[in-house]
Amino acid sequence: MDYPNDQAPGAPVRSGIPEHGRVPKYYAVKARIAGLLEELGEGGVIPTERDLAERYDVARETVRQAVRELVLEGRLRRQGRGTVVAGPKLAQPLSLASYTEGVRRQGRTPGRTLVTLDRFPCPEPLAAETGLTRGEPVWHLERVLLADDERVGLESTYVAVARVPRLDADFDPDSSFYAYLRDQGIAFGDADERVETVLATPREALLIGTPPALPMLLIHRVSRDTAGRPLERVRSLYRGDRFSFTAHLRG
Amino acid sequence: MDYPNDQAPGAPVRSGIPEHGRVPKYYAVKARIAGLLEELGEGGVIPTERDLAERYDVARETVRQAVRELVLEGRLRRQGRGTVVAGPKLAQPLSLASYTEGVRRQGRTPGRTLVTLDRFPCPEPLAAETGLTRGEPVWHLERVLLADDERVGLESTYVAVARVPRLDADFDPDSSFYAYLRDQGIAFGDADERVETVLATPREALLIGTPPALPMLLIHRVSRDTAGRPLERVRSLYRGDRFSFTAHLRG
Repeated sequence: MDYPNDQAPGAPVRSGIPEHGRVPKYYAVKARIAGLLEELGEGGVIPTERDLAERYDVARETVRQAVRELVLEGRLRRQGRGTVVAGPKLAQPLSLASYTEGVRRQGRTPGRTLVTLDRFPCPEPLAAETGLTRGEPVWHLERVLLADDERVGLESTYVAVARVPRLDADFDPDSSFYAYLRDQGIAFGDADERVETVLATPREALLIGTPPALPMLLIHRVSRDTAGRPLERVRSLYRGDRFSFTAHLRG
Repeated sequence: MDYPNDQAPGAPVRSGIPEHGRVPKYYAVKARIAGLLEELGEGGVIPTERDLAERYDVARETVRQAVRELVLEGRLRRQGRGTVVAGPKLAQPLSLASYTEGVRRQGRTPGRTLVTLDRFPCPEPLAAETGLTRGEPVWHLERVLLADDERVGLESTYVAVARVPRLDADFDPDSSFYAYLRDQGIAFGDADERVETVLATPREALLIGTPPALPMLLIHRVSRDTAGRPLERVRSLYRGDRFSFTAHLRG
C-alpha cells in the first residue's frame, strides 16, 4: 500500500503503529483515483461514478466519498456535469505585495467585485488596529476576489475614514486598494499576519460560490505605515482548494 | 442578525447580496452557542445537546451539527463525556526557529514521539531538495508532535545520510532535530515554506488522534545551510483546530 501526498514510499514503521488492515475502502479508492489523475493531466475528464464503481468493484457511494474529498482538496473540480483534474493551487506570497500583484505574478488575471463599502463608528476591538478611538468613523470595504473570473476569496478591509476620506468617491472597487493608497502618498512599513484554517460560513460560501463548510485559509493582517502608525486591518478568506501561501525565511 | 468571527456588526450590503432568509437553522444555533462560549470562558462546560435543543427550540440533530462545526474549528473540544470551551489556537511563528522553540515561547511544553526512523535510497523527487542524486541514502524521520502531552501534529523530515550519518545512533527522537544539527556544526541559512490546508488521511488521523477529514495545516519546508547547499525537506502537518501561523512582513 502507498500513501499519496509525498511520504516516502514503503517507509516501514518502527514504533508500533500498524499499517495494515486499517485503510478504509473509500480511501483505497481515493488513492487509485489520485493515481489516475496523474495519467490524465490537468483538465482531463475522469470517468463517471458508475464507471469508477465498476472498475474498482465498489459501491457508488464509496466512489462518491473519494471524489468528494478530492474536490475539497482541490485535486478535482466539477465542470458542468463532469469532474475534471484541477490545476495546481495558486501559490500566493506572504508579503506586503497586494493580492493583485501576487495573482499577476502567476500569470492569472486578478479581479474584484464589490460587496460592501460602508462607514460606521469604530467599535472597540478595531480601534487599536486602525489607529482610531471608539466611535470615530471607519471604512469597511468588502470585496470578492477573482482570478481569471473565478471567485477565489473574500476580503474585508477596515481603514480610518480620516486616512482616505474620499474612498467612496474616487476609488474604483475593481482595482488594487494598495495602488490607491500609494497614489494617496501612503506607504506600507510593516505588517503582522496570522494564517489559520476555518470553515466557510453560509454567507461566505454564498458570496464565494463554494460548497458550505469548505476548509478555507483565513489571513488576518494588521499593517502600519512607514512611520509605524496603524494603517489597516484586513481579514482575507481564500478557498483552501485553490490557494497556498509561500514565505521565504532567513536565518 | 450578526456574523461571528470579526465582521463589522450590521454592515449593510450595497451590491445585491441579500442577507435575510438565507441563514440555515443550524448556523443560527451555532452563532448563539458561540455567544455562550464567551460567557463561559476557556474550560467551561457547555450544556448537553438535549438542554441546548430545548433552550433554542430546535431538533437535537441541529444542535449536533452546530457543535460539530465548533469542534472542527477548535472553539469547542470534547473532554470525557462533555464538551468544553477550547483555549485559543497556538500561534506558531513562520520562522527558522524549530517547533520546539515556537511552542516553548508560548509557555507550552513541546514533545515528540517517534513513528519512523529509516534510511532508504533517495527517490528522484527528493534528490534536488536534499542535495543528493537518485539512489544515495536518505533518512526519513517521522514524529508525532506534542504540546503539553496533547498530540497536535506530524512531522516528516528527509535529510541526506551523509550529512548526519549517526542520526540513528546518537539522536534522541524526543529532542529538537535543529538543536542536534547545531551540535553537529550545521547552521541554517534560509528556507522556502509553503502553507496549505488539506484533509488528514486515515493514517495521519490515526497517528495524531483526530477525527478523520479534520482540516489540517500542511507546511512544506525546503531549507539550505549557510553555504546555500540543500539541507532538509520537511512536511509538517498541524491540527487546523489547534494551530495558526504568524509572520512579520516588512515593506
